[in-house]
Amino acid sequence: TVCYLFVLPVLLALLSLAVEGHVITLSSMYGSLESPNFPEPYPRDLDLVWDIRVQAGFRIRLDFSHFHLEPSYLCEYDYVKVLRQGRGSTSSSTSSSSSPLLSPSSSLSITFRTDYSDEDRYTGFRAHYTAQDVDECLERSDEELLCDHFCHNFIGGFYCSCRHGYKLHPDNRTCTVHCKDVVFRESSGIISSPEFPGSYPKSSDCQYQIQVQTGFRVRLEFDAVFDVEDHPEATCPYDYVKVVSGGRELGPFCGSVAPGSIETESSSVMILFHSDNSGENQGWSLNYTTTGTKPGLDQV
Amino acid sequence: TVCYLFVLPVLLALLSLAVEGHVITLSSMYGSLESPNFPEPYPRDLDLVWDIRVQAGFRIRLDFSHFHLEPSYLCEYDYVKVLRQGRGSTSSSTSSSSSPLLSPSSSLSITFRTDYSDEDRYTGFRAHYTAQDVDECLERSDEELLCDHFCHNFIGGFYCSCRHGYKLHPDNRTCTVHCKDVVFRESSGIISSPEFPGSYPKSSDCQYQIQVQTGFRVRLEFDAVFDVEDHPEATCPYDYVKVVSGGRELGPFCGSVAPGSIETESSSVMILFHSDNSGENQGWSLNYTTTGTKPGLDQV
Repeated sequence: TVCYLFVLPVLLALLSLAVEGHVITLSSMYGSLESPNFPEPYPRDLDLVWDIRVQAGFRIRLDFSHFHLEPSYLCEYDYVKVLRQGRGSTSSSTSSSSSPLLSPSSSLSITFRTDYSDEDRYTGFRAHYTAQDVDECLERSDEELLCDHFCHNFIGGFYCSCRHGYKLHPDNRTCTVHCKDVVFRESSGIISSPEFPGSYPKSSDCQYQIQVQTGFRVRLEFDAVFDVEDHPEATCPYDYVKVVSGGRELGPFCGSVAPGSIETESSSVMILFHSDNSGENQGWSLNYTTTGTKPGLDQV
Repeated sequence: TVCYLFVLPVLLALLSLAVEGHVITLSSMYGSLESPNFPEPYPRDLDLVWDIRVQAGFRIRLDFSHFHLEPSYLCEYDYVKVLRQGRGSTSSSTSSSSSPLLSPSSSLSITFRTDYSDEDRYTGFRAHYTAQDVDECLERSDEELLCDHFCHNFIGGFYCSCRHGYKLHPDNRTCTVHCKDVVFRESSGIISSPEFPGSYPKSSDCQYQIQVQTGFRVRLEFDAVFDVEDHPEATCPYDYVKVVSGGRELGPFCGSVAPGSIETESSSVMILFHSDNSGENQGWSLNYTTTGTKPGLDQV
């Protein structure tokens, strides 16, 4: 089967040559290409193109095992040109290029041109290509990591997973925590963003409910350490903290200046916290206390 | 689709668990496995085995992303054991094992046992596996290289090819040259094994015919440099040179002592040279000359 698989791309190449003229498309995951008549000398007046296209998620590695072309100044007579996504490299040296070429993408184009002269007997070239798995986990897209917590490469792709206690967000990239339906009924307590003062999770929507006895009033005192992703021009477009109580909404708060202390005048307060899918920020913490109120004052 | 592919092995694992009892077979090219109830604590009295089997030509890489088991002396209470082709490694530490495990073959077995006690709340483990291509070209089988000249790895296999001027032998490994139907008609000349004094090609059968004018007698003079693979006990079982003339066969010759000079008494001599598919030897060279004979003597 090794021999069969080896010969197949060559047969396909010859077939394509006959049908399509000058462009030979190679789409197997590996194969070889060679100058016409190889190992005999190549003909004159050639203008051939091999287009190698492998599956997405793979690179192409190209190795020349034989290279014997008529040498000329700036390769003006005969040459082989390898085009990898815009970047071209032309070669007409008579010795084999020793190091393999690696394409940044899943396609590669090879041109072979020969001139009218036929003075010497140059035997041409043979090259072997193979698809190579791209390890997406080693690559960064801009400044962001591909996966929030863990990245798992496999042949042809990758997937993300999260640390214990986290769930993969539907974006398949960021890791969220469960921070909804949390109710605080004690007369005082501390509430903070998850992992505070470590970085808070991405893509999260937290709801912390403070529900004390009717007639008492909740007072919030934010910690001086406050670090929520902001924007120099827009108001908290990414991450924010909001305080909702008695029909009033305070905030959104973000940036590095803590909101300080807030007298809510209510026994029921909701702290809302939203984070987007990027950024590393410490978050926030607050201490809440309750003060008694004169009977009936809440109703006023 | 990433999410779907990620969940599938887990579903299959649960299905297998229900059907086969204690052995869960995973045969995708990547996937994950985790302790029952993960991320909640694992149950007591477990005896589970995961059998990972990927395609031949691949290795398995196993990474633990979470590991939290009840610690005990020599892992006697709860443990995870990874078996890779005979070699076992047992682990029950409460921290994740940081470096990935690599199987030498395409299968791997993971055992998870827990004892009767349920005192603490240990959250178990999660592991991710992926098939990794084996680069056969980097591996040697015994002392021999896998391929005689060039080795080309691809995802899932490899193939061999030969230098210009050589042909791949039907064994798909060694490279042969064309050295048959060679006739020498001059009255003197030099004949040698291909590439002499470089290593001669493997898996080759050469026939060199010396055919001079009837009535002349060919004299062979072997070069002192003579190196043909031999064996300390058997007579030239691998590679040999033979001289056939006038119904006589001389040889086989092998080893490091040249046959010296041979008077063939004939005008027609055949030099046969055979090489097997291994070994690196210099070969042989000979100078032939012809001497005239009295008219009619050849007919006597």
